[in-house]
Amino acid sequence: MVEIRKPIQVSEAVKRVMSFAKHGVLEELSIMEAYGRHLAEDLVATHHVPPFDRSPYDGFAIRAEDSQLASLQNTVEFEVVEEIGAGYVASKKVQAYQAVRLMTGAQMPEGCDAVVMLELTQETERDGKKYMSIKRPFQPGDNISFEGEDTRQGTILVNKGTKINPGVQALLATFGYGTVKVAKKPKIGVFATGTELLEVDQDLQPGKIRNSNAYMICAQIERSGGIPKYLGVLPDDFEHCYNMIKSSLDEVDIFITTGGVSVGDYDYLPDIYKKLGASVLFNKVAMRPGSVTTVAELNGKLLFGLSGNPSACYVGYELFTRPIVQTLLFNPRPHLLKVEALLNENYPKPNPFTRFVRSRLIYQETTLKVVPSGFDKSNAVSSLAAASALMILPGGTRGYEKGMMVDVLLLETDDGSEWPWK
Amino acid sequence: MVEIRKPIQVSEAVKRVMSFAKHGVLEELSIMEAYGRHLAEDLVATHHVPPFDRSPYDGFAIRAEDSQLASLQNTVEFEVVEEIGAGYVASKKVQAYQAVRLMTGAQMPEGCDAVVMLELTQETERDGKKYMSIKRPFQPGDNISFEGEDTRQGTILVNKGTKINPGVQALLATFGYGTVKVAKKPKIGVFATGTELLEVDQDLQPGKIRNSNAYMICAQIERSGGIPKYLGVLPDDFEHCYNMIKSSLDEVDIFITTGGVSVGDYDYLPDIYKKLGASVLFNKVAMRPGSVTTVAELNGKLLFGLSGNPSACYVGYELFTRPIVQTLLFNPRPHLLKVEALLNENYPKPNPFTRFVRSRLIYQETTLKVVPSGFDKSNAVSSLAAASALMILPGGTRGYEKGMMVDVLLLETDDGSEWPWK
Repeated sequence: MVEIRKPIQVSEAVKRVMSFAKHGVLEELSIMEAYGRHLAEDLVATHHVPPFDRSPYDGFAIRAEDSQLASLQNTVEFEVVEEIGAGYVASKKVQAYQAVRLMTGAQMPEGCDAVVMLELTQETERDGKKYMSIKRPFQPGDNISFEGEDTRQGTILVNKGTKINPGVQALLATFGYGTVKVAKKPKIGVFATGTELLEVDQDLQPGKIRNSNAYMICAQIERSGGIPKYLGVLPDDFEHCYNMIKSSLDEVDIFITTGGVSVGDYDYLPDIYKKLGASVLFNKVAMRPGSVTTVAELNGKLLFGLSGNPSACYVGYELFTRPIVQTLLFNPRPHLLKVEALLNENYPKPNPFTRFVRSRLIYQETTLKVVPSGFDKSNAVSSLAAASALMILPGGTRGYEKGMMVDVLLLETDDGSEWPWK
Repeated sequence: MVEIRKPIQVSEAVKRVMSFAKHGVLEELSIMEAYGRHLAEDLVATHHVPPFDRSPYDGFAIRAEDSQLASLQNTVEFEVVEEIGAGYVASKKVQAYQAVRLMTGAQMPEGCDAVVMLELTQETERDGKKYMSIKRPFQPGDNISFEGEDTRQGTILVNKGTKINPGVQALLATFGYGTVKVAKKPKIGVFATGTELLEVDQDLQPGKIRNSNAYMICAQIERSGGIPKYLGVLPDDFEHCYNMIKSSLDEVDIFITTGGVSVGDYDYLPDIYKKLGASVLFNKVAMRPGSVTTVAELNGKLLFGLSGNPSACYVGYELFTRPIVQTLLFNPRPHLLKVEALLNENYPKPNPFTRFVRSRLIYQETTLKVVPSGFDKSNAVSSLAAASALMILPGGTRGYEKGMMVDVLLLETDDGSEWPWK
């Protein structure tokens, strides 16, 4: 009567899902639309930075050799033969004891090899000519930002798959990427299943609860870089569910349902996968919450059957769906970033299954600590709001104590891990 | 000739800017558009969670008292009088030695006070009636998720100003927030100044460089929760700049220029502030990069005169503009989150000014370490792309060594600090 399912380890489950991971497609956007998207090709320096020798200060360009005898006792005077702002270039080559007045960023005039900062000079005028004098010598190269000293042409500055942050945006502009090739966001369909579900704008009724999973998953999809397509609530009716799911599959790149994957009489998803002809990669994972998480595959398209339980649903998305989305976005480190932290509370209850505990990071001096973010029951929705991490407590016969080192998966960082599983 | 400006400390500069910080306005969005926005009011539980006593498992609801004599030797049998799925409620009160078949999430039938998991039961049928039997006793309350055990009605679950993450989204849906009051994003205008600037789609020319600051700032504005409005490049021409700036001020909530705030002959911003009648809060800060950062105020509107130098511009935005934007979004911790990390490189060069070094965090076991993210010159654009933090090196007469504890401001986290300055 009750189907016996054999649980597999989390790492094995992730491996089976990732065997269907593939790179996505690219689209070209204006640089102004590119922030937050993932690069679909390496960002290469199209020229040296700086592109020419330039002055990092306001001041005067001189030939260093002319300044060698300058000292407090021996002022050396230069004729100011030209004045150029940033964006302009000197019109003639500088000769002995001549100087060019320059603004910050201006290109070094031909013949000059040092810059004297404005505040170290004394300016005068005589007979309609401008002069400046200095009281110390300068060496060739003093106060020059040299061509290519920051970045050489041809250098790969940012790798394909990187999420575009403000610094990357600056590089794209610097190197003339007016349009940017980015990964197209995958479209991800979400159905919530369950006759007990009310829509968000319906009043509560006896025995019923509002559908929160679909909205949560849609936000998780956005956070991970996909486009959510909310398809609605499906009642516990096999034929209706089957038809709705079948007709929606082609519209999306990835398909998610929440609920209906347990072994209850109203859990239709297993039978729907069978009727669709999808092959089930697994239907039981040795983890809490989310042990009933089921993933199926149909013609290369993944169907994620997440638990109807909010925390289990949340964890299932982050462990199994996120790396598929991030791979479509070309991220070579598609999994949640795994770090280590000190457990800051006792967690005495042992569990044979690996637990993923909604947690909050604490930065204390230079040590990373972690605590559960709230009431720890798998149906506790409030602990998810404060969660910035999932603490991993491997299954076994003993509990965990304050001060032990545990693995933690970070939920809100754009960095990722290549393979966080042992 | 050269204006002498008196530098003020960073904390004092931030304080002067923050004296003009104010809360923004709210707008109401559909829950589907709310992800990533900031709550403009507290999120309050509109009912208990769970809203009724319910079963966390598939199984049978019974009266615990009827099970007291059950043991391996003494099977106790119950008549299954009803079967209810999640979303339905039992139609009659349960009597002695009666049971109700329940699915996960179903409301507890009247009269029952315990749930027996399906796998602990044996089911049979006789004379058209269904029965189930058990071999162990249950206590009142066993396997019940009690009304309100997760969350009590009226509880403030998430505070005003919090950025909506997937967990908050789930709470909004659970409590029937079909529309959500969120902070309206402020509109922030950006001009880049400098005749040396080419637009991103122009070819390089001698002496000129492409405008990268405006694109970077626009991304920083997006990251901090504002809407960037790029207004273009202004040439080094006082009247033209003045007119363009004056006519743009009314269109935006916050106004930013990059460049033109130094003391060079082409740095018009100070004179433009004067002609506009704006009061300058400061025009020199004891920091590197970004010492020329200037902030002015006109009728309560802030005008940020950021440096033309990319790194200085970047730092200026994060230290001074971000907290203003985050306050408009109701965030009570509007500054970049400050944590402590171990410096993982020697930094021997002392500097009288406080330095903000573009840095990268390293998680090593449970210790947070920090290293500069690249070539450290104030005009180095490439180090910004890899920066996830700004390391604070207070000014003084000595350098810093590997292993020292330093303050670090995190750039990519939604958490913030109330006041990170000493």
